[in-house]
Amino acid sequence: MELGRRVMGRKLVLTLVLAGLARAAELPLMPMPRKVTPAQGELKIDSSFGVVTSGYSDFRLDAAVKRFLTRVERQTGQALVKSDRPTLAIDCRERGSDYPTLGDDESYELEVSTAAARLQAHTVTGVLRGLETLLQLIGPGPDGWRVPAVKIEDQPRFAWRGLMLDVARHWMPIAVVERNLDGMAAVKLNVFHWHLSDDQGFRVESKRYPRLHQNGSDGNYYSQAEVRQVVAYARDRGIRVIPEFDIPGHTTAWFAGYPELASAAGPYAIERKWGVFQPTMDPSREETYTFLDNLIGEMVALFPDPYFHIGGDEVEGTQWKKSPSVQAFARAHRLAGQKDLQAYFNGRASKLLKKHGKIMIGWDEVLTNGLFPDTVIQSWRGQASLAEAAAKGYRSVLSFGYYLDHLQPASDHYAVDPLDGKARDLPPEQAARILGGEACMWSEYVSAENVDSRIWPRMAAIAERFWSPREVRDADSMYQRLEEVSRWLEWSGLEHRSASRRILSRISGGAPEETLRILADASEALGIEGRREARRYTSLTPLNRFVDAVPAESELARNLAHDVSRLPDAAAEAELRSAFTQWSEIETRMLLNPALTGGAGTELLPRALDLSSLGSIGLRALDFLLNGQPAPADWLREKNAELDRVERPAAEMKLAGVLPVRLLLSRIEPQRVANKGVRCGNEPGCNRTTTVLNWKFPQHRLKITLKQRSDRQVE
Amino acid sequence: MELGRRVMGRKLVLTLVLAGLARAAELPLMPMPRKVTPAQGELKIDSSFGVVTSGYSDFRLDAAVKRFLTRVERQTGQALVKSDRPTLAIDCRERGSDYPTLGDDESYELEVSTAAARLQAHTVTGVLRGLETLLQLIGPGPDGWRVPAVKIEDQPRFAWRGLMLDVARHWMPIAVVERNLDGMAAVKLNVFHWHLSDDQGFRVESKRYPRLHQNGSDGNYYSQAEVRQVVAYARDRGIRVIPEFDIPGHTTAWFAGYPELASAAGPYAIERKWGVFQPTMDPSREETYTFLDNLIGEMVALFPDPYFHIGGDEVEGTQWKKSPSVQAFARAHRLAGQKDLQAYFNGRASKLLKKHGKIMIGWDEVLTNGLFPDTVIQSWRGQASLAEAAAKGYRSVLSFGYYLDHLQPASDHYAVDPLDGKARDLPPEQAARILGGEACMWSEYVSAENVDSRIWPRMAAIAERFWSPREVRDADSMYQRLEEVSRWLEWSGLEHRSASRRILSRISGGAPEETLRILADASEALGIEGRREARRYTSLTPLNRFVDAVPAESELARNLAHDVSRLPDAAAEAELRSAFTQWSEIETRMLLNPALTGGAGTELLPRALDLSSLGSIGLRALDFLLNGQPAPADWLREKNAELDRVERPAAEMKLAGVLPVRLLLSRIEPQRVANKGVRCGNEPGCNRTTTVLNWKFPQHRLKITLKQRSDRQVE
Repeated sequence: MELGRRVMGRKLVLTLVLAGLARAAELPLMPMPRKVTPAQGELKIDSSFGVVTSGYSDFRLDAAVKRFLTRVERQTGQALVKSDRPTLAIDCRERGSDYPTLGDDESYELEVSTAAARLQAHTVTGVLRGLETLLQLIGPGPDGWRVPAVKIEDQPRFAWRGLMLDVARHWMPIAVVERNLDGMAAVKLNVFHWHLSDDQGFRVESKRYPRLHQNGSDGNYYSQAEVRQVVAYARDRGIRVIPEFDIPGHTTAWFAGYPELASAAGPYAIERKWGVFQPTMDPSREETYTFLDNLIGEMVALFPDPYFHIGGDEVEGTQWKKSPSVQAFARAHRLAGQKDLQAYFNGRASKLLKKHGKIMIGWDEVLTNGLFPDTVIQSWRGQASLAEAAAKGYRSVLSFGYYLDHLQPASDHYAVDPLDGKARDLPPEQAARILGGEACMWSEYVSAENVDSRIWPRMAAIAERFWSPREVRDADSMYQRLEEVSRWLEWSGLEHRSASRRILSRISGGAPEETLRILADASEALGIEGRREARRYTSLTPLNRFVDAVPAESELARNLAHDVSRLPDAAAEAELRSAFTQWSEIETRMLLNPALTGGAGTELLPRALDLSSLGSIGLRALDFLLNGQPAPADWLREKNAELDRVERPAAEMKLAGVLPVRLLLSRIEPQRVANKGVRCGNEPGCNRTTTVLNWKFPQHRLKITLKQRSDRQVE
Repeated sequence: MELGRRVMGRKLVLTLVLAGLARAAELPLMPMPRKVTPAQGELKIDSSFGVVTSGYSDFRLDAAVKRFLTRVERQTGQALVKSDRPTLAIDCRERGSDYPTLGDDESYELEVSTAAARLQAHTVTGVLRGLETLLQLIGPGPDGWRVPAVKIEDQPRFAWRGLMLDVARHWMPIAVVERNLDGMAAVKLNVFHWHLSDDQGFRVESKRYPRLHQNGSDGNYYSQAEVRQVVAYARDRGIRVIPEFDIPGHTTAWFAGYPELASAAGPYAIERKWGVFQPTMDPSREETYTFLDNLIGEMVALFPDPYFHIGGDEVEGTQWKKSPSVQAFARAHRLAGQKDLQAYFNGRASKLLKKHGKIMIGWDEVLTNGLFPDTVIQSWRGQASLAEAAAKGYRSVLSFGYYLDHLQPASDHYAVDPLDGKARDLPPEQAARILGGEACMWSEYVSAENVDSRIWPRMAAIAERFWSPREVRDADSMYQRLEEVSRWLEWSGLEHRSASRRILSRISGGAPEETLRILADASEALGIEGRREARRYTSLTPLNRFVDAVPAESELARNLAHDVSRLPDAAAEAELRSAFTQWSEIETRMLLNPALTGGAGTELLPRALDLSSLGSIGLRALDFLLNGQPAPADWLREKNAELDRVERPAAEMKLAGVLPVRLLLSRIEPQRVANKGVRCGNEPGCNRTTTVLNWKFPQHRLKITLKQRSDRQVE
């Protein structure tokens, strides 16, 4: 493009049209309800706030109202005093089931006027959902706390909306589980899938086979009383608990106490590494099934939900291949290979579950012939598995695309729909067999300390996919609401934001964590794929490094990118200048702290240097843009190359701060400018060119349209 | 001074000598032990860290070791695995008392070598103290977590080292009490004085007189089981619990249930306002003493400590004056006035306590004739009261100077010594009656949410005054260690830093709290004196405003002031530039958030404007200084006037950020420069003037000495 060179001494008038990212005052609700009808005015929430209930009521409802009032107090910082003012009237029409059940009526209607709020639901679970919506609506107004007047009619799209938490690879104490149940309830999830055993740990007390938890957990297991406590805690919040005991693979930790269960001779020890391992249960010995029969018999007493997960994924095969007795057994039963053997094993397991009154759920691999028709398939491989299961008459749940440990942007998960792909073309009666979805939090690279930050806030976006109408798909709207809801989630007890500060504070060794926070806010941690090869991780490696405090997705980078698009707006400029200045000074500031020059600093100083560089480029580019000066071509070339370099991951993280600086450079780069240039013709006096630019950043779901008008003075 | 005008085109060479504030690597210990002998090398703290005990051991010691290991895990982010490596050997020589007792041996010796650590103490309490010291020493090193090799011999200076918490004026739930007990143990305090009743609340369940807590607490009281739980929790941490039931004044809440106790007819209701009120117990009715006899009889069963506090302060007098029966009683008993009446009442109360096996402690006012010789006086009036009590043979505890609700700088409290003033001149046997001190946290203007931030970290500085040798008085050293210990204290469960963020987050209404944090970090909240008249506060007024999230003392302002003194050091410049830029942009950034333009913004926007102004002045001054340019006199005059304006409190807070900017201006202001100018004589070639400047900022305990050498070129 010659535009840049031909236009001299020009005055740039920038008009910016931002697609989708407009920050209109959308209600901070997530998941977005089915129908929201705004009204005029608002309801004041002061210390006289009170609740009155009518219709059906039980201990769950009473406890929920109590928790609700405590949370109103916490969110507003106002102690509520007993008052006769029934600010919120709750009407629960039916008893519903005491223990939450698949297919429960979770609908509710919430109507807020300037005088009062009214919440109606058929069941206690519906009331629970509505209370969360109301809590999300409480915000500060000019005269104190208030809820905008609104009418909401809501009900979920899918009946199965879950989170799977792996407590085997890293131990998660009760407190972690409970605060995540609070978070789940806050975004209307209703299934907690508890991955209780794997090669690295068996996490439940067994009175029948005590060496399971004694030899298989390093002492980190839930007592049966604690399991009951968690189940009751979840029930009170309208959440079903589904235990998973993964068999016949992923069972090394079982064999530490009971080596006779394995297909090869022991001894075995708890696995400390990550991966898929050889130890597999022996499908040829009747004793294996007796053991499972007894264990399942013991465990079903702890878990009231009718569904019971037996895993069934990633059977490695070596032990079976090498075992003469297993091979002899296969021949005797005409089982052609590993797949048949596993089908046999699954068949036996499913019969045991049926005997104990349970419905089997398993990962893709369990989808073989001879399953009971009520079996549920959980797909980690994609919607094709769902479609296949549905066509065969089975119900299913999607987890593919919802793997939180990959640390993908929320928008990636948000774009995945259980009814997309092959599932889209299913006839309605088959599509109805797709019950919903479950996000998965595998715990190779998370600890009890930072697991919240790997689940949240992204889980809330997935929860919206499961709850809200299919048409709710706008990622910009999602991000706008997600940021608000993310902060609100900390009020329900999650620590996804505060935990990061604690880790940074620890690394800073008594000095302010401010410096590292600046670096962390501009960074994004790599997911499991990026960390696997980075160093020799085992389950004993402490997850206490900088990367463990870095978010999965940088809110700051996204907001600064938005600010770039709003320039020359003064507030946007102020945010950018403030951030870029902090970045540009960070390397020097790190030198102030001895804890950051040795030790942790060894890997962080180079990254700090990179961020300093980004900040300096950003400041300079900001000046070019706001002074209406074109940047020298050499400078641009050099700085773009620098951005390319800085963008490469290192120290198990990437610098998300590259995005806004990249955008800024694109705005002062005449050579790259212009998808379309519109000029007036040769009529006398015309000296105007309008250039329309479109920038797309698909990985950030960001589209920016820039209209640039140049008023030229022709030389 | 003509210096500025006469020196032209000069080159300024700035050499800076900083008095006292040198940041040498002092061990982050608080309170400072009696004797610290550094050694070579360090002890590695990795996942194999283990503890072995020898000598005497009991349930308290076992529980303490367990807590200690958990805290090591939390501080290092490393899960400890069982190992045979006894990194720490604990040797407890004697049984000591199960319940901590005044005068217990709390001494310990801690020796850390590169191979292991050894902790020796006579009692379990001594072990507890030593474990806290060891935890404070754990920090990050180049190769992971470590403790520097050192030998520490330690014991307290005073036997009574306390914190009084007022749970009557604002309710403090058990969790608040317990985490503050953890904080107390962390800095080796040993007395928790629990102010359980006042006009605004009676906070303990009484089975004998249930209307005390039923009518006097709004439902916010401790059950007797909870009281026992707190006492046990404190005992495990080597802390005595002393209850206070304040009589005969400060008793309105008692009269809500038992109006017949008052000296005037009821009815009474819980007092909602702050101040000194008329309702006072009737000293003339025998039933009053019967009631107290029964109540004390009930309460002594909950509190094993031999000391029992009956308050006795601020009797207002009106009810007694106006009551014919009280006046008749006074005449009959030849009691001349209010003072005599109170002395009579105290005498009766002290006999009741004696009957129930307790030793009386009361505020200054109880110091009248006829007290039992073991009575302890707690002075809120000053060391003169201590001296008077000591001279009369009574023991005493100082609280004057340690009133945390005044929100004075830590250095103010730190400078107060129980043995200063009139107490300094006491003969040794009388001085020995001064048992120590107690900081007081009155709760008119703190809530459960922010009380930690009003107690901590300043309490740690006071704890050092009570524990460490008298000679440990250097405020700069104190501040340097306090900042590190403050962060460390959050690891023991306190929320003095994190709670502030939560309040800011709430006010920000779903938007990032970053903007308000910048303002808060540069601010200091006013204490009780500054807030009393600011608005109509009652116990029902929510403490959820910006001022409630602002620290008592700005660490940032102190550090930036230090940075100014270190200029032209690059790291100091980076910190200053970063902060000043953030400040200068803050007003514009606030406009981004609708929650901050209405509502809370009404009082905050003017303050944000002030901080923006400070930031801009700072940036400009920084440029003047670093370019070696003198600032124009007009500019300086104008900006100093601006600082004077900005320094004035508003919105119940002051901008501590004025300090570093003020200091910076002083460095570029030739007119103000010079306490002493030293010039070489008239010898040829001499063109040098050395100016020595001393700046004192007593309110910040900051002294800066600046040596400025001017190499002149005479015109």
